Amino acid sequence: MRQGKFITLEGIDGAGKSTQLAWIVELLQRAELQAVVTREPGGTELGERLRAVLLDKSMTMHAETEALLMFAARREHLDKVIMPALAQGQWVISDRFTDASFAYQGGGRGLDTGKLEILEHWVQGALQPDLTLYFDVPVEVGQQRVSQIKAADRFEKERGDFFQRVRAAYLDRARQFPGRIKIIDSSQSLAEVKAAVEQTLQPLLNHG
Amino acid sequence: MRQGKFITLEGIDGAGKSTQLAWIVELLQRAELQAVVTREPGGTELGERLRAVLLDKSMTMHAETEALLMFAARREHLDKVIMPALAQGQWVISDRFTDASFAYQGGGRGLDTGKLEILEHWVQGALQPDLTLYFDVPVEVGQQRVSQIKAADRFEKERGDFFQRVRAAYLDRARQFPGRIKIIDSSQSLAEVKAAVEQTLQPLLNHG
Repeated sequence: MRQGKFITLEGIDGAGKSTQLAWIVELLQRAELQAVVTREPGGTELGERLRAVLLDKSMTMHAETEALLMFAARREHLDKVIMPALAQGQWVISDRFTDASFAYQGGGRGLDTGKLEILEHWVQGALQPDLTLYFDVPVEVGQQRVSQIKAADRFEKERGDFFQRVRAAYLDRARQFPGRIKIIDSSQSLAEVKAAVEQTLQPLLNHG
Repeated sequence: MRQGKFITLEGIDGAGKSTQLAWIVELLQRAELQAVVTREPGGTELGERLRAVLLDKSMTMHAETEALLMFAARREHLDKVIMPALAQGQWVISDRFTDASFAYQGGGRGLDTGKLEILEHWVQGALQPDLTLYFDVPVEVGQQRVSQIKAADRFEKERGDFFQRVRAAYLDRARQFPGRIKIIDSSQSLAEVKAAVEQTLQPLLNHG
């Protein structure tokens, strides 16, 4: 059995993933555990080049093309980063993974879930994260937080109803896999969210 | 039934596809048929950006990543170029299509054919070219022709045994789909190859 755990963070932009990612790294460091921190789309040289294409506001593409590109970047990410780190006993924390494809391309773009499941199995076989933290926040709250920080990319320029569908798909997915995906109420205060993350992580740390 | 036909050209580099593509366009023009000429990977703005990544000599990627990228470019190519043109009754001539994935990623890289068939069905459903011309040439002949023209890209820098596997996979595929894929012996003289192409195309032109 592998010792390192694979943890993924999910949520719309503005849900506080970055802040909590830093907090998780700190919790792991306190437990003297080494973690590889990565993100999707991206995480590899090829993945970052695909990320630039995927987030480019001037680019238009079919929803199925978008899904194939996300899974292409993921295949490379698994091969170059995730699998080697897990094989060495390291923990891997990824800012987004396959649940994001079900949320954005499935929920947001309306792509058939069955077609996404085919790609999921094609790319990762039976591999799943050990724990997924889904940071849930009302769409309006997330968008307000993001608009204060940076210009919108190709996804962020979508309208509110797109993100309502993304959020609904994330919540559906969390209900479908309650053992793996834990919902964190990210509209709470920062201290409360951090406490919730620590509590959710504790069982893994104790048995890591 | 659609009036425009979908014709694909296959073969290793140096097999003479470009020359014969121009010849096919001329034959169609003589028959007063309009043709859209395109290529894979590429054919769309996104496809050309992916082509640049795929042919970049400095890039390394897993064979499965390469296959997913090829099919992502193909999905977009179908949506933006091939399907609209066929729907308008135009002919489409593509320099490479899905058979190239079976030859290069399947034969060349050793990727499982069953996994490629899943992507083929995912991306194009039941759509297949009406006619595929496979220009067959011994690997040494093709390589000699190419080396005189340009610097090698990420595929062309592969060794001879890679292209032997690509050629073998093309021939396998032609045997598997004898109704659709016609083998043209491209080691013949230019006049002979042109005559063979014209003869192979004639039934389609007569019933177009």
